[in-house]
Amino acid sequence: MHDELRRQVLDASHDLAARALAHASFGNVSAVDRDAGVVAIKPSGVACAELRAEDVSLVSLDDGTVLDGLKPSSDTPTHLALYEAFGAIDGIAHTHSTYATSWAQALRPLPCLGTTHADYFNGDVPCTRALHDDECGDGYERATGDVIVETLDGRDPLEVPAVLVASHGAFAWGISAAEAVEHAAALEEVAHLAFNAVALAPVEPVSAALLDRHFGRKHGPTAYYGQR
Amino acid sequence: MHDELRRQVLDASHDLAARALAHASFGNVSAVDRDAGVVAIKPSGVACAELRAEDVSLVSLDDGTVLDGLKPSSDTPTHLALYEAFGAIDGIAHTHSTYATSWAQALRPLPCLGTTHADYFNGDVPCTRALHDDECGDGYERATGDVIVETLDGRDPLEVPAVLVASHGAFAWGISAAEAVEHAAALEEVAHLAFNAVALAPVEPVSAALLDRHFGRKHGPTAYYGQR
Amino acid sequence: MHDELRRQVLDASHDLAARALAHASFGNVSAVDRDAGVVAIKPSGVACAELRAEDVSLVSLDDGTVLDGLKPSSDTPTHLALYEAFGAIDGIAHTHSTYATSWAQALRPLPCLGTTHADYFNGDVPCTRALHDDECGDGYERATGDVIVETLDGRDPLEVPAVLVASHGAFAWGISAAEAVEHAAALEEVAHLAFNAVALAPVEPVSAALLDRHFGRKHGPTAYYGQR
Amino acid sequence: MHDELRRQVLDASHDLAARALAHASFGNVSAVDRDAGVVAIKPSGVACAELRAEDVSLVSLDDGTVLDGLKPSSDTPTHLALYEAFGAIDGIAHTHSTYATSWAQALRPLPCLGTTHADYFNGDVPCTRALHDDECGDGYERATGDVIVETLDGRDPLEVPAVLVASHGAFAWGISAAEAVEHAAALEEVAHLAFNAVALAPVEPVSAALLDRHFGRKHGPTAYYGQR
Repeated sequence: MHDELRRQVLDASHDLAARALAHASFGNVSAVDRDAGVVAIKPSGVACAELRAEDVSLVSLDDGTVLDGLKPSSDTPTHLALYEAFGAIDGIAHTHSTYATSWAQALRPLPCLGTTHADYFNGDVPCTRALHDDECGDGYERATGDVIVETLDGRDPLEVPAVLVASHGAFAWGISAAEAVEHAAALEEVAHLAFNAVALAPVEPVSAALLDRHFGRKHGPTAYYGQR
Repeated sequence: MHDELRRQVLDASHDLAARALAHASFGNVSAVDRDAGVVAIKPSGVACAELRAEDVSLVSLDDGTVLDGLKPSSDTPTHLALYEAFGAIDGIAHTHSTYATSWAQALRPLPCLGTTHADYFNGDVPCTRALHDDECGDGYERATGDVIVETLDGRDPLEVPAVLVASHGAFAWGISAAEAVEHAAALEEVAHLAFNAVALAPVEPVSAALLDRHFGRKHGPTAYYGQR
Repeated sequence: MHDELRRQVLDASHDLAARALAHASFGNVSAVDRDAGVVAIKPSGVACAELRAEDVSLVSLDDGTVLDGLKPSSDTPTHLALYEAFGAIDGIAHTHSTYATSWAQALRPLPCLGTTHADYFNGDVPCTRALHDDECGDGYERATGDVIVETLDGRDPLEVPAVLVASHGAFAWGISAAEAVEHAAALEEVAHLAFNAVALAPVEPVSAALLDRHFGRKHGPTAYYGQR
Repeated sequence: MHDELRRQVLDASHDLAARALAHASFGNVSAVDRDAGVVAIKPSGVACAELRAEDVSLVSLDDGTVLDGLKPSSDTPTHLALYEAFGAIDGIAHTHSTYATSWAQALRPLPCLGTTHADYFNGDVPCTRALHDDECGDGYERATGDVIVETLDGRDPLEVPAVLVASHGAFAWGISAAEAVEHAAALEEVAHLAFNAVALAPVEPVSAALLDRHFGRKHGPTAYYGQR
């Protein structure tokens, strides 16, 4: 059942572990087949590195009903909320990667301080507000998704393919599970660069002109980077 | 003699080394068989990575008498004090891991700044007071155990499965040697996250609601994380 | 065609990746054959680690016309500007390596704080000014090269074989692609040392006497380091 | 000639590289046979990782005359000055390891902030004064050795088996080349711990009682650590 979708989640999960973005059983990956209305997602409590194809969970896109595989990640409602709100994304990666999580724990958005950042994110990567106490109840994971959507505040999710969740970690996404992992990896790297930079000087974000140049080199009609 | 107990200490010691939590011959692991009144522990001066099954030391739980194997870790009296005070724990790991030890050297308790922390520790990980001069004499290692117990101050050792020892390092524990190592690894990771976070902003601990949600997701009657 | 030149770029690109100086597809290397008027350079969007000999791009030194191989790096005009201005260099390496880029994002030149630095760089490694908005248009990559030349300000490029590009990363060079990578690696290491040192104390550059001693040990007529 | 002495330097040099304490061709190791009046030392410009037994340099202890092997390390006069002043040491390791060098570049002695430090060093690891301009001339490497001796200021070199050289790096020593490398590795680790600790809090050195306890556990007549 949905072998290709499962394979995407399997490969992306292994990639997340290989890039040292997922400690212990933290971190998970999902992919959606919107035509079939099915989401494949890492099972709960299974380390990304040890995931096997047959264990990948399948749930329905509309209400999260488990269709096959092991019990899905407890973060499944967060993923579903993002797929619902962001129609252009087909893959999600969640990490507690060290530097991205450090900014999230400091409750600070990640400013765009350089071209490495601008190559992937069209401006700052925002950080959610803290969840209210009544959002930490039974609907906690759904509320996490909702606050990510609230935080993106209408910006294009493919131009800002990640959000920091306050006191928690990062959610990144893309047009596939593989791209979501790539964005999670880029986020960790630019979070490290920015951590170091602000330790060296009180520094302002790059100019709009430089941001446009670099984001535009790689994205949209003006792109000229790569073998296309 | 007590092959299974020795095997637990052997495997956990190798795991401690493989996770880069034990430099040189620092770090040690023990496990207790309470029915038999026997503790297995790493021998003194042997690197965790190079430990062999037959070298694991066996000592009596009540007074530390050596029963078999090499000369036990010089920290054995610390382990015995913890087993005596905390009846629910059956494994202990001691490390000088980099970030946990940095907080211990700074004499600062490790605040709960995020959900990664809250998944393992129900609140801050406390740091002991400095030992008094008269506690640095012949009974030094026993005094180290006693000050850990004093520092936990009646909190449930399975809800706070680690303590920072001032100017020294970390002791972590659990229901087995393997779990003790897992807690030592989690402690190092959250110590790193917190080190970075406080460099970025003066940050407060997470709300009680978020702490309860995450600790409760994984522990006790409300747990719903993992394949159970 | 120009197999030896391509081989240099291939080997140096793999070396850049092996030293963890090039994340994702960031980073590129070139080498010039000035007699033939040909530059070999990494193709656009190809990861350094995965580069193959037949994919290395060949372009003309004078105007960048593509002669063979895949589409060249989008940074090619930067490389050509440097070869044009610095007649003594025959290889260039560009990185977003973590610590060098951190200083570049902080817009700070890298001061010479120790002999490790002085062994490679005869004084500080300067940081360019930010590019003006009108330099971020179509001629952006050429402008990047020009501002590097402007920043070197007449200093000998073989005595200061690297420049930090503000909000971007590092360009390093040498008498060959291999030496350019060696300089990029040295830059990253001394950028890390300096990052740590300024966190520990407000520290001044080393004395001219110590700088002269160390740079002179390895370079020019007074050199006595190594097997020569 | 002196195969065993060469073997010690060879093994210790490889160990220094394997522990990531020697970048590029930085770092060197020597060992002395005092009865024969011969010092074996890494050759100049050869990376520790690539050293071969037949290339190890042999020089005379009294005046540095080259006896066999490649041209010796340019730091040979520093090593000879230390062997001359410290009769109890038979091996030396020199590194530019990251954290030790960071303290050296900050011109700060490394305070004893914890038991990891106290297990190896009986108090702070001092940092030399900056060399005067006239010490940076032809006798520079000898002056480096002399300032290390001056800095130790009569303390027992086996109780303080390392010194930070201002704006340069670390020299460590011991009763053998292997022990010198072990001390260089311990220095790097405790320099990292102390770097982190002082970032977290303004922290005082440990008490004399705790220092005595830990240093005495491993050294001298009171030692009870290890399998002895």
